[in-house]
Amino acid sequence: MIDYNPKDWFTFVFRLHKADTVRKLLPMIVAICLYSGLVAWLEAEVWKLSDDSRVKNISMLHSLLGFVISLLLAFRSNSAYDRWWEGRKLWGSLVNNSRNLALKMNALLPEEDRESRQLYRAMIPNYAFALKNHLRSQFKPEEFVAAGGLEAQHLDTTRHVPNQLASVLLRRAYSLQKQGVLTGEQLLSVNAELQSFTDICGACERILKTPIPFSYSVFLKKFIFFYVMTLPFGLAFSLGYFVIPAVAFVFFVLASMELIAEEIENPFGTDANDLPIDGISQNIRKHVEEIL
Amino acid sequence: MIDYNPKDWFTFVFRLHKADTVRKLLPMIVAICLYSGLVAWLEAEVWKLSDDSRVKNISMLHSLLGFVISLLLAFRSNSAYDRWWEGRKLWGSLVNNSRNLALKMNALLPEEDRESRQLYRAMIPNYAFALKNHLRSQFKPEEFVAAGGLEAQHLDTTRHVPNQLASVLLRRAYSLQKQGVLTGEQLLSVNAELQSFTDICGACERILKTPIPFSYSVFLKKFIFFYVMTLPFGLAFSLGYFVIPAVAFVFFVLASMELIAEEIENPFGTDANDLPIDGISQNIRKHVEEIL
Amino acid sequence: MIDYNPKDWFTFVFRLHKADTVRKLLPMIVAICLYSGLVAWLEAEVWKLSDDSRVKNISMLHSLLGFVISLLLAFRSNSAYDRWWEGRKLWGSLVNNSRNLALKMNALLPEEDRESRQLYRAMIPNYAFALKNHLRSQFKPEEFVAAGGLEAQHLDTTRHVPNQLASVLLRRAYSLQKQGVLTGEQLLSVNAELQSFTDICGACERILKTPIPFSYSVFLKKFIFFYVMTLPFGLAFSLGYFVIPAVAFVFFVLASMELIAEEIENPFGTDANDLPIDGISQNIRKHVEEIL
Amino acid sequence: MIDYNPKDWFTFVFRLHKADTVRKLLPMIVAICLYSGLVAWLEAEVWKLSDDSRVKNISMLHSLLGFVISLLLAFRSNSAYDRWWEGRKLWGSLVNNSRNLALKMNALLPEEDRESRQLYRAMIPNYAFALKNHLRSQFKPEEFVAAGGLEAQHLDTTRHVPNQLASVLLRRAYSLQKQGVLTGEQLLSVNAELQSFTDICGACERILKTPIPFSYSVFLKKFIFFYVMTLPFGLAFSLGYFVIPAVAFVFFVLASMELIAEEIENPFGTDANDLPIDGISQNIRKHVEEIL
Amino acid sequence: MIDYNPKDWFTFVFRLHKADTVRKLLPMIVAICLYSGLVAWLEAEVWKLSDDSRVKNISMLHSLLGFVISLLLAFRSNSAYDRWWEGRKLWGSLVNNSRNLALKMNALLPEEDRESRQLYRAMIPNYAFALKNHLRSQFKPEEFVAAGGLEAQHLDTTRHVPNQLASVLLRRAYSLQKQGVLTGEQLLSVNAELQSFTDICGACERILKTPIPFSYSVFLKKFIFFYVMTLPFGLAFSLGYFVIPAVAFVFFVLASMELIAEEIENPFGTDANDLPIDGISQNIRKHVEEIL
Repeated sequence: MIDYNPKDWFTFVFRLHKADTVRKLLPMIVAICLYSGLVAWLEAEVWKLSDDSRVKNISMLHSLLGFVISLLLAFRSNSAYDRWWEGRKLWGSLVNNSRNLALKMNALLPEEDRESRQLYRAMIPNYAFALKNHLRSQFKPEEFVAAGGLEAQHLDTTRHVPNQLASVLLRRAYSLQKQGVLTGEQLLSVNAELQSFTDICGACERILKTPIPFSYSVFLKKFIFFYVMTLPFGLAFSLGYFVIPAVAFVFFVLASMELIAEEIENPFGTDANDLPIDGISQNIRKHVEEIL
Repeated sequence: MIDYNPKDWFTFVFRLHKADTVRKLLPMIVAICLYSGLVAWLEAEVWKLSDDSRVKNISMLHSLLGFVISLLLAFRSNSAYDRWWEGRKLWGSLVNNSRNLALKMNALLPEEDRESRQLYRAMIPNYAFALKNHLRSQFKPEEFVAAGGLEAQHLDTTRHVPNQLASVLLRRAYSLQKQGVLTGEQLLSVNAELQSFTDICGACERILKTPIPFSYSVFLKKFIFFYVMTLPFGLAFSLGYFVIPAVAFVFFVLASMELIAEEIENPFGTDANDLPIDGISQNIRKHVEEIL
Repeated sequence: MIDYNPKDWFTFVFRLHKADTVRKLLPMIVAICLYSGLVAWLEAEVWKLSDDSRVKNISMLHSLLGFVISLLLAFRSNSAYDRWWEGRKLWGSLVNNSRNLALKMNALLPEEDRESRQLYRAMIPNYAFALKNHLRSQFKPEEFVAAGGLEAQHLDTTRHVPNQLASVLLRRAYSLQKQGVLTGEQLLSVNAELQSFTDICGACERILKTPIPFSYSVFLKKFIFFYVMTLPFGLAFSLGYFVIPAVAFVFFVLASMELIAEEIENPFGTDANDLPIDGISQNIRKHVEEIL
Repeated sequence: MIDYNPKDWFTFVFRLHKADTVRKLLPMIVAICLYSGLVAWLEAEVWKLSDDSRVKNISMLHSLLGFVISLLLAFRSNSAYDRWWEGRKLWGSLVNNSRNLALKMNALLPEEDRESRQLYRAMIPNYAFALKNHLRSQFKPEEFVAAGGLEAQHLDTTRHVPNQLASVLLRRAYSLQKQGVLTGEQLLSVNAELQSFTDICGACERILKTPIPFSYSVFLKKFIFFYVMTLPFGLAFSLGYFVIPAVAFVFFVLASMELIAEEIENPFGTDANDLPIDGISQNIRKHVEEIL
Repeated sequence: MIDYNPKDWFTFVFRLHKADTVRKLLPMIVAICLYSGLVAWLEAEVWKLSDDSRVKNISMLHSLLGFVISLLLAFRSNSAYDRWWEGRKLWGSLVNNSRNLALKMNALLPEEDRESRQLYRAMIPNYAFALKNHLRSQFKPEEFVAAGGLEAQHLDTTRHVPNQLASVLLRRAYSLQKQGVLTGEQLLSVNAELQSFTDICGACERILKTPIPFSYSVFLKKFIFFYVMTLPFGLAFSLGYFVIPAVAFVFFVLASMELIAEEIENPFGTDANDLPIDGISQNIRKHVEEIL
């Protein structure tokens, strides 16, 4: 994710940032300009359409469908943003549960039980790093802090890594209760935090694996394509060669909305708009180590 | 559900995928083309309408109602997508609860209680498969793994199968507590997972059995039909034979939105856009067997 | 509620179903047609308005306000649909809690405590039936199954009937705990289900007793009325006698949206679009009796 | 709140109810009519603008901004309605929690502990009345039923009254547990109800004290004002003196939406659209007294 | 936050409040006026465009894109308002949890345990003040009330201050239980409140650190800029020098919506629209001190 000052209009309008859609759409925009110019030239020079040609009225169609395409793109943006924001909430919730579990374990565990303290101190942040890497289909042993006899090479990377860590966290809590270190009620008071890790992991996997239904994706792309491709025919009549920037601008607007939606729909990658889950994981480590 | 790369525009625009609405609407689109052509021919050749005929102004009506129909379709898409996404969340929650229950049972059950471990190892995934089949009004004995003396043929398929499995899961937990294997607090700490199965089942049944209110469905279809049927009268005047692709395109857009909404509204079937609940069930089996 | 196949366009478009808004609006539509015809005749034959009369431009007003009325109706439909869907969720939740309570009581109660089993077996479904009848301001003794010495005539129908049944369910659970049949933790594990009945009842009462704020209802009806009444003046100029079907169609669209919203806003009645709460109550009885 | 039959169109359209926005806006509507008439007269008689005057095209601006103002008002209505509906949900939840607490206390308290029963029988409804009065910045001793030695004059009305009652409810529950009348688990089973009172109170205070952000309120009012004030200039050209009802109607529509939103945004007062919290409080008293 | 009476239209429309967007946009509005005047002068006096110049039709583009820009701004306003409102809910929830914890501790702690009572009396409000200052990246020792031996200078301001206070609150509760002052069930009954502090803190940090995705911010600003910059070319043709107020008004509307959204998106600062978290913190102190 890019840190930025949302109030600084100047650089927003004039600088071409790496994540700017203008940059990504540039080749397409150039192609659209050439195409629109060609259509304008054909209409004016080759077909020499008369002033009352019906081609002029094709624009009626575009203004009729302008509503539908706008609403569809708004729907698309909304659903993509909701996923992005839900992903952010899930990681925020991971921060909260990591902190609360650390705070509670700090209060519950006897000072002398160094080993259990060390286990939670290492494994709570390990879970965040493991989840981050799991969502990016990778495993980074260097981000794993060994504790309680569990080292990075003991993890079976062909199986679900976050589950293995959640299992460590849960087993220790139940075994502390069986040993009498924790009472039954104390166990219940950390139950919500302990099970939240797996809930968060499952919800992130859901966002990752379920893009918008295939039919919407196909339909919206076909719709934008045909809308923009037919646009110069009607407009060239009224706008002449001004049709070139006009169609390019319309294309820029419609395609940008689809492009941004595609990018933020899966918020766990390393794109410019993706969530700063590397930083969040480091924060969890920092805070948990401050507490425990 | 179809796995796809949402960033690959080219194949989206030009390939006719099996789930593409163009494919399904093709016969209707051809019919609309013929009808629009007929209207254009009648206006131009038979009725020979003069340039100031009032027929021309029928388009005013279509632009007036264009906004209403767009908003209605947006409302329809939103509510259908919400069901689809809620269905996905429910199955995500089934994954989470299955994993958490397995993780906790793994920590709680003594190593030597092979039979109880085997029971949860088999029945947690059995529930997912039974729910999937229940939502499709079928029962597949080959997807049932026998454990604890319960085999596929013991299930009464004329009654609610997921309830029978939920009952097995619950009874074992309570009987373990009565035997003293689990303490009261340990029982409470798995209570949320145990009752979640039936909650998820009920919520899926709700989505399955409750489409959008009948009146909206009728009203929207009548509205689209009359809107498209009257469209060529006004447009043919301005567009001549260009009315044929224009009306076909408008019909394609409006009908696609209704068609996709219908399809995703019930997300538990085997259509191209439906949720991958077969795969999710297999995943639950895989992960639970890794854990327990 | 009407069971229907949402993919069957043909019958939707051409059949006049009982719940169809066309049917209900027919007298009004006929009146609007006569009124529009009268306006068209007055403009053409009596007032003999010239072609540049300013009456023609009244349509500007209608297209200006077309957005606002469409957005208002979308807002109206959304809020009505949300109530309908919330009502459905509440009854789905009643199903889930009834099943979970039955499943848990089945696991908790000793086989020999026939009387308590019989009590829950009868009273859980009785609650659903009582709530259904309460929401329709009626009481049907024939839908009450006696158990534990409680018969239909013992209920005080001048007081809140569902509360009396919730009290029976709760008292028995607490007295079972006082007798030592249930432990404290077992009691806690059924606490959520026991209190959910009253929560669901209260939420249904809220939906039933609170329609959309009075001012919106008045405002929207006044707005639609004046919008449609002034529509023919502007349109008759451009459309001549075509104004008759045009205004009728606009009226049909706007009034249908308001009409459907009114109907589904209170989803507990016996209208065609209302929720199938009779069937759900019977389902609860069937499933609870299968379980307990 | 006004009880009404939403299906009765006739009286809605033709009667001027007390809460009708027409009534409140009447002076403004008259002023707008005079102003529009003046503009129309100036254009036609004084400035004698020619037919191709650019003043005519000012309407382009109004149709361009028509979208924005409509969407803003829809956003305003949505956020105001959400508050109103959240307020209703909170009071519905107060009903549910009052009933559930009464039902549980009825089952938990021994028949002979008359004093505790009387305390909850009086204080649960007292809380609802106190909250209602607190939200209206008043205190009505006549709505307070004394019990357990606590009388209206013992309350410190300079401090937060609902908190004092919540404290009474909580202290009694904890002291019953300390005396052994309630077990620890029984205490936990009423914990959710006991803390809900303060949560509901805080949420109502939030709605009461936080209107829509100041900048939106200013911006929307300025926008409506300038939009309506400039409207007659463009329209008078096309509509002549018909501009008077036209501008008045547009003003009525836009201002009504803002007016209704303002009114329902704070739903705890005694306006016509406000929530029936007097009635709800009485209902809580009636039901709690039936139960306990 | 500014306290205001939303029903007072007069001052809203005519006074230039400090937080008014007109004030902030004034330099830009002046610049836009000059620019529009220049374009109008160039078109009329320098280029002397003929009446059928295609430049006139550029307005088609603006009305085509007017819908998209409106929907985008509505989406922007919605998402910013949702954050603002979520922030308000979180602080409302902090109020509720602070009060409930104080009420419960008051009931639970023995009268003679002055020291624990004093600790909660001081630390619950300290948490609110510390969170407020943490969200503004500051630390104010004068807002900290010492208790239980913990003074402002003992806090490590280089580390996460709210976490240190949450740790104090949690440790005391667990140590009271270890000492037998609280029973296990009593501990569980305050568990939700104790962990809510950290959850609220984490959620506020999430809102603070995550503005709308960078790409939307860039795209929207570019879109508004080019839309407004090209607007005078088309409009000057139809409106002449009236284009100056017209473009200024359009700019005022579009930029205000973006400006307000930017401002309320981060609601924890000290801007005019920000949440009154200073006042809320003081309220928490006042109420907690009344209770404990």
